[in-house]
Amino acid sequence: MSEDSQGGGLACPVPITQYPQVLLAHGGGGRLTHQVIEKIFLEAFRSGELESRHDGAVVEVPGKRLAFTTDSYVVRPLFFPGGDIGSLAVHGSVNDLAMCGARPLFLSAGFILEEGLPMESHWRIACSMKAAADAAGVRIVTGDTKVVERGKGDGVFINTAGIGVIEHGLAIVPASVRPGDAVLLSGDVGRHGIAVLSAREGLAFESEIQSDSALLSGIVLDLLAAGLEIHCLRDLTRGGLATALVEIAEASRTHVQIDESRIPVREDVQGACEILGFDPMYVANEGRFIAFLPQSQADRALDILRRHPLGREALLLGSVLPQGEPGIVTMRSKIGALRIVDMLSGEQLPRIC
Amino acid sequence: MSEDSQGGGLACPVPITQYPQVLLAHGGGGRLTHQVIEKIFLEAFRSGELESRHDGAVVEVPGKRLAFTTDSYVVRPLFFPGGDIGSLAVHGSVNDLAMCGARPLFLSAGFILEEGLPMESHWRIACSMKAAADAAGVRIVTGDTKVVERGKGDGVFINTAGIGVIEHGLAIVPASVRPGDAVLLSGDVGRHGIAVLSAREGLAFESEIQSDSALLSGIVLDLLAAGLEIHCLRDLTRGGLATALVEIAEASRTHVQIDESRIPVREDVQGACEILGFDPMYVANEGRFIAFLPQSQADRALDILRRHPLGREALLLGSVLPQGEPGIVTMRSKIGALRIVDMLSGEQLPRIC
Repeated sequence: MSEDSQGGGLACPVPITQYPQVLLAHGGGGRLTHQVIEKIFLEAFRSGELESRHDGAVVEVPGKRLAFTTDSYVVRPLFFPGGDIGSLAVHGSVNDLAMCGARPLFLSAGFILEEGLPMESHWRIACSMKAAADAAGVRIVTGDTKVVERGKGDGVFINTAGIGVIEHGLAIVPASVRPGDAVLLSGDVGRHGIAVLSAREGLAFESEIQSDSALLSGIVLDLLAAGLEIHCLRDLTRGGLATALVEIAEASRTHVQIDESRIPVREDVQGACEILGFDPMYVANEGRFIAFLPQSQADRALDILRRHPLGREALLLGSVLPQGEPGIVTMRSKIGALRIVDMLSGEQLPRIC
Repeated sequence: MSEDSQGGGLACPVPITQYPQVLLAHGGGGRLTHQVIEKIFLEAFRSGELESRHDGAVVEVPGKRLAFTTDSYVVRPLFFPGGDIGSLAVHGSVNDLAMCGARPLFLSAGFILEEGLPMESHWRIACSMKAAADAAGVRIVTGDTKVVERGKGDGVFINTAGIGVIEHGLAIVPASVRPGDAVLLSGDVGRHGIAVLSAREGLAFESEIQSDSALLSGIVLDLLAAGLEIHCLRDLTRGGLATALVEIAEASRTHVQIDESRIPVREDVQGACEILGFDPMYVANEGRFIAFLPQSQADRALDILRRHPLGREALLLGSVLPQGEPGIVTMRSKIGALRIVDMLSGEQLPRIC
């Protein structure tokens, strides 16, 4: 077959002399992941929804605004303190819908099983998905199962896609972020990544660190129900808090500034990060998010967040500078110095979600 | 963690003494695939939409009837005569929406890449998806990319989920099939499976057999536009024509009877099947479907099908017997004998889609 018949005649835009092959770091959520997404995904597929660089697409079927999202889950190990690949696959896609400001309604579930997977593991994972879906008030309405040969997969990979309905008139996307906005953070960071890594590597810390994996739809719907003018929401998954901030600053061409001393990190997570050489700002979470909204509404938003079990420690993390440098994030360190926060350029923790 | 915390306290319903582990045949589309779906998927997730045993779910968001579907694609090799994993991933999910009688609107794309995949293959596949999506008039609006270590995947796996809108009042599901219905077949069978297998195994037949992979949304929308009372549609993917017929007979508790002599199989496909020991009735297609509708509308439907390039050879394959045995398919063979058609019990061609 000719290249033309396969690729519609478009030349490959990736500098293939630099990265002729996929690296693990291309999946790490950092700079290289963004490069693949921009050079391949956006370039090939081009659509307004993709350009918005959000966690899901907001699409219009005649008369209805819907959110649509997808994520594949390849976390290793399949079971970890505080969750498993099944609950994660539901939480992740429900949270992506929530980050679009949508009420989650329906999920699909696609399984890629590796020959030899214990059938009981498959069952436990399916039940865990069901329990998480029930808790979220969403229904798993369609699915698919494929099997690949032993050594061509890794136990089970799950894809979930989600549909939610948008019941307000806000455009909750990076492009809505405005100079002067407050940046709120819903709670402590770094637990999911450390929980998965310690399960994977058999690390024992003084106390077992549990993943923060949780459903964010309830707390987000609380914010929306209060009529707050939310500009953007983002959950802090692959690449952690730092990557989420940089993504939004870049996509909105604004300058976000935060205070390092305000970032809540549990002592055991901080200790584990120090031992492992990780910066908790870059470690994945699965139940934490940031919210951008007008400074004048920050206190009301914090009140609402703190009334929810998942937002008790919610705080004002920083703000969008009125006259900053477009597309950057700066952080005032604990000793007062100002430094630029960037995405990871490579891979910190592969297969964290 | 206790079983309870993982599995919501449900006991595993699979006879794990018989199949304690996932077998390749659990992905083959035959009896074992159905067992996994029934014992794990339906048991764990229970929902009316899943119970309908259709290619996608029809869901209601206030005021709108939508179809929602998902499929993961693990075809090997990635490129084969007549298509590649990218075009297949679009055709497959668009076709599932079409089988729900929906107009396809949006797709998601989730990639699981194996470390080491040539970046150019990724690009070619993405471009192929884009070309297929354009041809279908659907937009790829959201996506995700994960990377797994070398040896933990197989080049690339793709999941696509799709949303379509239903613009008529019909319930196009197996449960709508009625005694007396005509069963129409849109064209010849067996090409996709043989094309993929010959590419995989390096088999050379006299002529290159091309996959029939194609978009069925146009031809189905033609049928719907004519106001025909379509009862059920099913594309003939994994497990082929035989499995699709048995699935519908079982789900509708009807007796379907077909004529073997009417099944169109191209001479080169027939020859390849004989060499390989396959029955073309069980070989996967990606651009063929069957339709159930009242006998009185069969001629009009055939006229419409035959006007479309993908339906030129459309024909009346059989009927739903007025007084048959519920849940079975029988076939009158070329020599006049009547035999029961069953699903495959095991695996014929792994990783065909």
